[in-house]
Amino acid sequence: MRISVFRKEHFNAAHRLYNPNWSDEKNEQVFGKCNNPNYHGHNYDLIVKVTGEVDPETGYVMDMKELKDVIKAEVIDRFDHKNLNLDTEEFKNLNPTAEHISHVIWNLLRKKIDENFALKVILYETERNYVEYPAD
Amino acid sequence: MRISVFRKEHFNAAHRLYNPNWSDEKNEQVFGKCNNPNYHGHNYDLIVKVTGEVDPETGYVMDMKELKDVIKAEVIDRFDHKNLNLDTEEFKNLNPTAEHISHVIWNLLRKKIDENFALKVILYETERNYVEYPAD
Amino acid sequence: MRISVFRKEHFNAAHRLYNPNWSDEKNEQVFGKCNNPNYHGHNYDLIVKVTGEVDPETGYVMDMKELKDVIKAEVIDRFDHKNLNLDTEEFKNLNPTAEHISHVIWNLLRKKIDENFALKVILYETERNYVEYPAD
Amino acid sequence: MRISVFRKEHFNAAHRLYNPNWSDEKNEQVFGKCNNPNYHGHNYDLIVKVTGEVDPETGYVMDMKELKDVIKAEVIDRFDHKNLNLDTEEFKNLNPTAEHISHVIWNLLRKKIDENFALKVILYETERNYVEYPAD
Amino acid sequence: MRISVFRKEHFNAAHRLYNPNWSDEKNEQVFGKCNNPNYHGHNYDLIVKVTGEVDPETGYVMDMKELKDVIKAEVIDRFDHKNLNLDTEEFKNLNPTAEHISHVIWNLLRKKIDENFALKVILYETERNYVEYPAD
Amino acid sequence: MRISVFRKEHFNAAHRLYNPNWSDEKNEQVFGKCNNPNYHGHNYDLIVKVTGEVDPETGYVMDMKELKDVIKAEVIDRFDHKNLNLDTEEFKNLNPTAEHISHVIWNLLRKKIDENFALKVILYETERNYVEYPAD
Repeated sequence: MRISVFRKEHFNAAHRLYNPNWSDEKNEQVFGKCNNPNYHGHNYDLIVKVTGEVDPETGYVMDMKELKDVIKAEVIDRFDHKNLNLDTEEFKNLNPTAEHISHVIWNLLRKKIDENFALKVILYETERNYVEYPAD
Repeated sequence: MRISVFRKEHFNAAHRLYNPNWSDEKNEQVFGKCNNPNYHGHNYDLIVKVTGEVDPETGYVMDMKELKDVIKAEVIDRFDHKNLNLDTEEFKNLNPTAEHISHVIWNLLRKKIDENFALKVILYETERNYVEYPAD
Repeated sequence: MRISVFRKEHFNAAHRLYNPNWSDEKNEQVFGKCNNPNYHGHNYDLIVKVTGEVDPETGYVMDMKELKDVIKAEVIDRFDHKNLNLDTEEFKNLNPTAEHISHVIWNLLRKKIDENFALKVILYETERNYVEYPAD
Repeated sequence: MRISVFRKEHFNAAHRLYNPNWSDEKNEQVFGKCNNPNYHGHNYDLIVKVTGEVDPETGYVMDMKELKDVIKAEVIDRFDHKNLNLDTEEFKNLNPTAEHISHVIWNLLRKKIDENFALKVILYETERNYVEYPAD
Repeated sequence: MRISVFRKEHFNAAHRLYNPNWSDEKNEQVFGKCNNPNYHGHNYDLIVKVTGEVDPETGYVMDMKELKDVIKAEVIDRFDHKNLNLDTEEFKNLNPTAEHISHVIWNLLRKKIDENFALKVILYETERNYVEYPAD
Repeated sequence: MRISVFRKEHFNAAHRLYNPNWSDEKNEQVFGKCNNPNYHGHNYDLIVKVTGEVDPETGYVMDMKELKDVIKAEVIDRFDHKNLNLDTEEFKNLNPTAEHISHVIWNLLRKKIDENFALKVILYETERNYVEYPAD
């Protein structure tokens, strides 16, 4: 009996989209307003999806409290109220697009979630723009 | 032309998470606040996903009014404003976790939905905790 | 410069609507499904509105962290994952309608919020039914 | 590194469900209120899902601004504030059910989105009724 | 103990904004896309606010079931899946702007709600455009 | 016939809460994570409420398209994808709390909205923290 369970959390952060190998003109042309050198920011909504067998003893795939604590330790405490470009190791040399942020979060969580479980990350940058990693 | 159609409904219920084979201490340790012997409750949001070929006569996979009526007869009338542990046959001997509730709802609906259609159930216990059965 | 600030929190609880002075028939007639003797439950969304002058030093009417902590101590820790009728002093002898719950919460918070601030409570029993106390 | 990116847009339109090969009685029986000869209408929410490899130069699967512009040119400008049955070529001879609308939108977008990307369309007719094409 | 209670309902309808005393050019200039002679449509979300004293016997300002039934009889059955301009008496000679619709709904409900209660109507034409009548 | 009309818009920005008259320790103590010298950010949702008489010619209090354009010119173009502390005149010497931002926005809009109309601004910093200026 394989079931997926989902937990929604959120964090707020500043970022800037920027490719250091490009000229300022090309960065401006490709990333537009998102290239503002003084940064802008978002309320990120994060949904973590864990898929596995239901434990017959608990009736849980995984304790949501435990999943919440892992997300807090690995993601929220690391990125909440931070400047992703300046304050984090992960994005010092990686452009903090929603695609890259979801990939980084997946890698952070993957190490902490039982390997018998499949893992997926959905990240809302705004209500209208969001990403899912890995793709189905 | 295979398409998925989704219908969202809701019901309110009380429940308690509990494993009768465990001591009170273990139940308290594993289920925490959800183990309250006097019950707590939720507004459950239920999304039913039906996948199949579009009927060229109607342009429908399935009449949403018919799907709504099946959900009402099988799920809402059975669980709405009920104590899942005390008032229902389904959870007299089954721990009413979101995982188990989604599985029970899937079985109830599966008997009433044309077998040519694939069926999936998404159940929100809160805005932040939800499950999907079966997993992709 | 008077401004209103709002903080949204939530709790889950079981309850039953019941007037002990009435016959079972009258309770059933007036409260319908909400009168189920085995209880049902809700995810309550609570919005607390505090109105006052902005402090020129902080730019705050009130620190939202402080407001969050007061709501947690007075409301969430008291009612979350509880059976309102059985587990709480406040509703042992008071019918836990949304109207009464909002009034009780207002009284609990009023003692802890600076009297220079006006206070209002908005309580969602479901997405479609909610109340506001006091009325404008 | 395959990722899915999603963009949400909306449009408002009138429509009527109707099969010209059927009698008025059969249309009324099958489509009920949706068969009103004077039309009714909806706020359609449209989510477009594009799946592909992340471009290592930009960190994007696809520029969301570009996707937004394609949706505007192909879908919003064509259907927003229109009567789907009377004002559009696409539904002159096609019953504008949510299933058919999602299929038409998918075909319109498919021609404009790089063929290396997989494409899916999710269309909300109301908050409680929605469809996804193609099915997983 | 005066409290406000709110009930949310919805209906779908087609309409066209149009002033018959104006030229087609002026109608087009003022109402733009909303002037489409073939109509467009919306999912209207309606919130009805009733303010009064809490009944000490029931703990209710007003039974939400009763309020739901009044809204259904007076508003939903009248306007749902209708063309407001063509199918309703109320808008045969009245431009169906959100302002006018909210005013019409208020008048319909006012006759059916106990005069000891204050009444207000909030009407969402889209998620981003809404009105409240009467103003505070 | 006085009615209130509401228009919802949004913008994304970075900010830092900080009082230059205080020590770093006091800033850290009062503003906590919001004091991060490298900034963090938010998706701000802005609701503008305009109250006035309905124009009998148009059926509008005010053309929502016009209101949208005023908000875009005065607020969105000024603050979207900006660092409020560094990129804007308004917050060079004013702590960008939600209270202050709502006050600044009200002043910007007040000059552009007909003085016969009352004006109110509701600003969501997050889904759970929001403010309203002026207070009722």
